[in-house]
Amino acid sequence: MKKIGIICKSGKKEPIEMVKFMLPWLQERKCEVFLEPVPASVLGQKGFERENIPDAVEIVVVLGGDGTMLSAARLIAGREVPILGVNLGGLGFITEINKDEVFSALEQVLDGRSPIEERMMLDVHVFRESAEAGCFLALNDAVINKGAMARIIEMETFVEASYVTTYRADGLIISTPTGSTAYNLAAGGPILYPTLSSIVIAPICPHMLTNRPIVLPDESDIRIALKSETESVYLTIDGQVGLPLKQGDVIEVKKSNNTTKIFTPCGHDYFNLLRTKLKWGER
Amino acid sequence: MKKIGIICKSGKKEPIEMVKFMLPWLQERKCEVFLEPVPASVLGQKGFERENIPDAVEIVVVLGGDGTMLSAARLIAGREVPILGVNLGGLGFITEINKDEVFSALEQVLDGRSPIEERMMLDVHVFRESAEAGCFLALNDAVINKGAMARIIEMETFVEASYVTTYRADGLIISTPTGSTAYNLAAGGPILYPTLSSIVIAPICPHMLTNRPIVLPDESDIRIALKSETESVYLTIDGQVGLPLKQGDVIEVKKSNNTTKIFTPCGHDYFNLLRTKLKWGER
Amino acid sequence: MKKIGIICKSGKKEPIEMVKFMLPWLQERKCEVFLEPVPASVLGQKGFERENIPDAVEIVVVLGGDGTMLSAARLIAGREVPILGVNLGGLGFITEINKDEVFSALEQVLDGRSPIEERMMLDVHVFRESAEAGCFLALNDAVINKGAMARIIEMETFVEASYVTTYRADGLIISTPTGSTAYNLAAGGPILYPTLSSIVIAPICPHMLTNRPIVLPDESDIRIALKSETESVYLTIDGQVGLPLKQGDVIEVKKSNNTTKIFTPCGHDYFNLLRTKLKWGER
Amino acid sequence: MKKIGIICKSGKKEPIEMVKFMLPWLQERKCEVFLEPVPASVLGQKGFERENIPDAVEIVVVLGGDGTMLSAARLIAGREVPILGVNLGGLGFITEINKDEVFSALEQVLDGRSPIEERMMLDVHVFRESAEAGCFLALNDAVINKGAMARIIEMETFVEASYVTTYRADGLIISTPTGSTAYNLAAGGPILYPTLSSIVIAPICPHMLTNRPIVLPDESDIRIALKSETESVYLTIDGQVGLPLKQGDVIEVKKSNNTTKIFTPCGHDYFNLLRTKLKWGER
Repeated sequence: MKKIGIICKSGKKEPIEMVKFMLPWLQERKCEVFLEPVPASVLGQKGFERENIPDAVEIVVVLGGDGTMLSAARLIAGREVPILGVNLGGLGFITEINKDEVFSALEQVLDGRSPIEERMMLDVHVFRESAEAGCFLALNDAVINKGAMARIIEMETFVEASYVTTYRADGLIISTPTGSTAYNLAAGGPILYPTLSSIVIAPICPHMLTNRPIVLPDESDIRIALKSETESVYLTIDGQVGLPLKQGDVIEVKKSNNTTKIFTPCGHDYFNLLRTKLKWGER
Repeated sequence: MKKIGIICKSGKKEPIEMVKFMLPWLQERKCEVFLEPVPASVLGQKGFERENIPDAVEIVVVLGGDGTMLSAARLIAGREVPILGVNLGGLGFITEINKDEVFSALEQVLDGRSPIEERMMLDVHVFRESAEAGCFLALNDAVINKGAMARIIEMETFVEASYVTTYRADGLIISTPTGSTAYNLAAGGPILYPTLSSIVIAPICPHMLTNRPIVLPDESDIRIALKSETESVYLTIDGQVGLPLKQGDVIEVKKSNNTTKIFTPCGHDYFNLLRTKLKWGER
Repeated sequence: MKKIGIICKSGKKEPIEMVKFMLPWLQERKCEVFLEPVPASVLGQKGFERENIPDAVEIVVVLGGDGTMLSAARLIAGREVPILGVNLGGLGFITEINKDEVFSALEQVLDGRSPIEERMMLDVHVFRESAEAGCFLALNDAVINKGAMARIIEMETFVEASYVTTYRADGLIISTPTGSTAYNLAAGGPILYPTLSSIVIAPICPHMLTNRPIVLPDESDIRIALKSETESVYLTIDGQVGLPLKQGDVIEVKKSNNTTKIFTPCGHDYFNLLRTKLKWGER
Repeated sequence: MKKIGIICKSGKKEPIEMVKFMLPWLQERKCEVFLEPVPASVLGQKGFERENIPDAVEIVVVLGGDGTMLSAARLIAGREVPILGVNLGGLGFITEINKDEVFSALEQVLDGRSPIEERMMLDVHVFRESAEAGCFLALNDAVINKGAMARIIEMETFVEASYVTTYRADGLIISTPTGSTAYNLAAGGPILYPTLSSIVIAPICPHMLTNRPIVLPDESDIRIALKSETESVYLTIDGQVGLPLKQGDVIEVKKSNNTTKIFTPCGHDYFNLLRTKLKWGER
C-alpha cells in the first residue's frame, strides 16, 4: 500500500477533473491518497494542507504545469519523495507526462518500473550588513532583476575568491540545468542537459556585448554584490518567490544538498522534449 | 551676435568647469550666453530655468553625456535650434564632441561651417479606456517593460491594421535609428545608420526564440495593446520618463513631425564612433 | 489577350502537374502561354528556352519555391514584367501564393486587381587588379564566404569613403530587405520589412563579438576588400551563382536601378507570412 | 636534471629570439633542451624533428600562440608531459603566459611549484561504408563545415541511442570546454569553464532559429550522419587538420582517454583571462 499525495494547480478545473478519475483508480490499487482541501471537498474526501502533504506520503503527483511543479519541488526538497509531473497545458519542460499517458505512467510508478531522475537544486542566501536577509531553495533559477523604471544595475560577481566581472545589465540569471530552458534560454543562454553537474550564469541585456553566458562547475560558490543605488531591484526564485534587494546586498548561490527526484516513465527522452517544445521540426 | 544656451549635466563639477572657459570665449565672439541657475550663480551671471532656454536661443550646447542630450533634445523639439553635444564621460553615442575638440567645434558652429544632422523622433501616445492617458516625445526609444517581480507580459502588436504578433516577453523596445545603439543593442537588435528612415521593434527576452527584431519603414503606425493582468508594467521614454501601464492600455508609437538637429563638426563619422565605442579594434 | 510565361522548378513533377490545369484555364481566358521545353513537351506545346521567355511576355508565373523565384527574378530584371510566385513546397518567403490560392490569384492578376510590390535589387561588381572580374544582380543577397578548410577571412569594409571596419569572420552577408529572412536571419541579422529602402550587412561568425549587423540607407555604396591570402573564398549571389575570389579583390555592392515586381494578391500581408514561416504561434 | 622540449611557431623570428635567451637560462639550471631543426641551427645546436620531441622530454615549452599550442597538444597527447604555453601575440586563450612572465613561470615549473590543469580532449572517428575513414584527437573542437559554394547541409545527430535533431545549417561545432572560447563563441555558443566535464554542440547559422547550443555531459557519445549530397563538406580538427566528408559518413565524437596537461603558474585565473581577451572592461 502506497501513500500518494496529489498537488493540483490552483484555481483551475482541469486538475480536479483529472483527480476524479485518478482517485478511484489509485484506491483500487490499494493506494492511500492525500488531496489538498479544494479537490478533497469536491470529491467528498478529507483534505490536507499542501505543506503537510510531503511528510505524509511516499510519492507526489503534480497536476498542472511547470509552475506547480516548481513550487511542489521546493516544498518536497530534502525528503525521499519522488514526483510524477503531469502536464495539463503550458510549456511542460519539467512536467513531461501528457494527459493521455497518465495511467500508464502511474502503473510504471506503482510497479517500481519507472526511472527516477535526480535534479540539482540551488541554495540561495542573501546577506545584508553581515546578517542573513533571506534564504531560498531553487529548482530552476535565482534571478536578480531591475524594476521597470530602474536604470541598468551593477552586479560585482565572484566565483570562490576569483573576481569574474561587474555585470552592467538589466539583471542576472543563475540557473540549474533544469532551469536552462526557462528564463536562461530567453536571455540567450545555452540548453544544459538536465543531469549535467553545472550552473549557468546568463546576464540579461548586458551593456557589454561580450558578456556571454558562462557555464560553471556545480561546486562553484557564486557571490554577487549589488553595487547600484536603485531602490527597485529584486531577487526572484523560480519566477515565483521574491525579495527586494538593497545596495550592498550580497547574494550567494551554490549547489544545494537537496535535490528533486522526478519520475521519467513512458520512455521519454530529453531530446524528444526539446524537439517538441522548441518546434525543431520533423526528421 | 548669436544667442547660445548651455545645458549642463546636473550635480557634476566638470560641466561647470568647462563653462568657466567657454563663457569668456563665447562673449569675446559677441555671443549672448544663457546659463542654467547653478552654473550661472557660480560664474556670477543671471540664470535661466532650463525649460526657458530653448525659446530664448538659436543654438544649444549640451555639456554632459547621452542622458543630458536626450532630455535637452525632448525639451528643444519643435524649434529650429540645433544642438552641439559635448561628451564629458560616459558612452557618448550622441554627444560626439570630445573635450579637446570643443573650441574647434564651436568655431565651426559659429562660422556656419558645421554640418547639421536631422534625427527622427517618435510620438508616443497611451490610450486608456478611450481617453489619452499620456503623450510623449522620444529621441531614442519607447520601452514597455515588466517590473522585477512581474511575470512575462503579453503585448498584442499591430502595424497599421495588420496584426504582427502577440509578444510574450519581458518587454518591447521601439527605437529610432539614434536609439538603436542604446537599449535595442543590448536586447539583440541591429545597429541602424542614424539618418535611416526606419523604426526597429526588439522584444526583450522573448519567450518565442523566433521573435527576432524587425526593422520597419518610418511611416509605420505601431500600436501595442497590453494584454497582461500584471500591476507593475511601465512605459519608459529614452530611459528617463515613465508611466505605469494598465491591462488594456494601447500604446501608439509613430514618427514625430519634430526632429532633433545635431551639429556634427570636426569630421566625425558614424563608423568611427562604432569602432571606438564598441571596441571593434584597429585596422 | 495577355502573354504569360510559366517558369517551373526543374526536375520536379508537381509544377508540371499544375501546368496541366493552368494551361487550359489561361487559354480559356484568351491568354497566350509560353512554356519551357520540358513542360511544353509533356503538354504537346511549343517550348521556349527560359532565357527567351522574359522578352516575349507581360507576366511571369513561377511554379516552385524561393530558389526558382530568385533565378527568375534575376533573369527578368530590367523589364516591366511582374511575377506571380506560387509555392509548391519549401520555405516560400517570396513565393507567397499557396497551391489552393492559385486560380483566385490568377484571376486578380488578369483583372488588374492585384497589387504589385516593387522589390529592391543589388548590383554587385568584383574588381581585380583594376579590371572588372565579375558583375551580378541579386534579389536576396551577395555573400562572401570562406571555404570549409579555410581559416577566418579579413574583409576591409567601406561605405562611400568611410572606413567601417575590417571584419574577421567566416564571411559577410550583404542583403536586401527581401533577403533579410534568408541567410541574414540565420546569421543573426534582423528582419527588414520588404519595401524598406535599406541594405543590411551581417558578419558570419565574427571574431569580434561586438560586430553586430548594421542596417544602412539603400543609397550606400559598399566596398569590401578581401585582405586574406586564402585560396578558397567565394562570392555567392542569391545562394545560386558564384565566383571564386582572390586576395586583393574588391567587391562593390550597391542598390540596382533594376527591381523585381511581385504580385501580392489574395490579401497576403508580410506579418502573416512571418507568423506562419517562423512559427510565431497563434494569437 | 630536467629534459625540456621547445616547440616554436613556424616561420616567425620572435620565438627564435626568445629561445636565444631561454637556452642558456635553462642550461644554467642543468636542463637538457631539445630544439626543433630551425631554432637549433640558428643557435648551433643539434636539432630534433618536432614529432620526436614528446618521447624525449619531461616538459614541453610552446612559444607562439593558440595554434602552435593546439598542434603541440595533439602531438603530446597520451604522454605524461605537461606543456607551458607562452603567448607571443594573437589571442592566447590557452597560451596564458605573457613574454614578461616567462622566466618567473619557468622557475615555478622547474621548482615543481606550478599547478597543472588537465584539459579534456575529444576522440573523433569517421565511418564510411562500415569502414573507418579517419581518426583524430582534438583539444579544441571537431567542426563539420560546408564549402563556400555549397548549400545548407543536413546533419542527423544522435547522443547514444537518442535522436537529437537533424540540423540544417552551415555546419556543426562539437567543442571541449577549452575550445568553447574559439569557434564555438563566434557561432553563439556559451563559455564553458575549462575544467568542466562537458561537451558543447553549437550549430553554425542554423536554419531553425530555435536550434540553440546544447551542453552535454562529457560521457556523451555523439554521432552525426551527413545526409546531404554535397561534394564539399569537410571535417576540421582544432581548425588545423581536415578530411573531406561524403554523404552517408558518420562522425563519432566522444571524450578521449587522453588529456592535455597545461602548466598554470603565475597566479593566472580564467576569469582574468576572459576579462582581458574579451575586453570586459575594468571593475
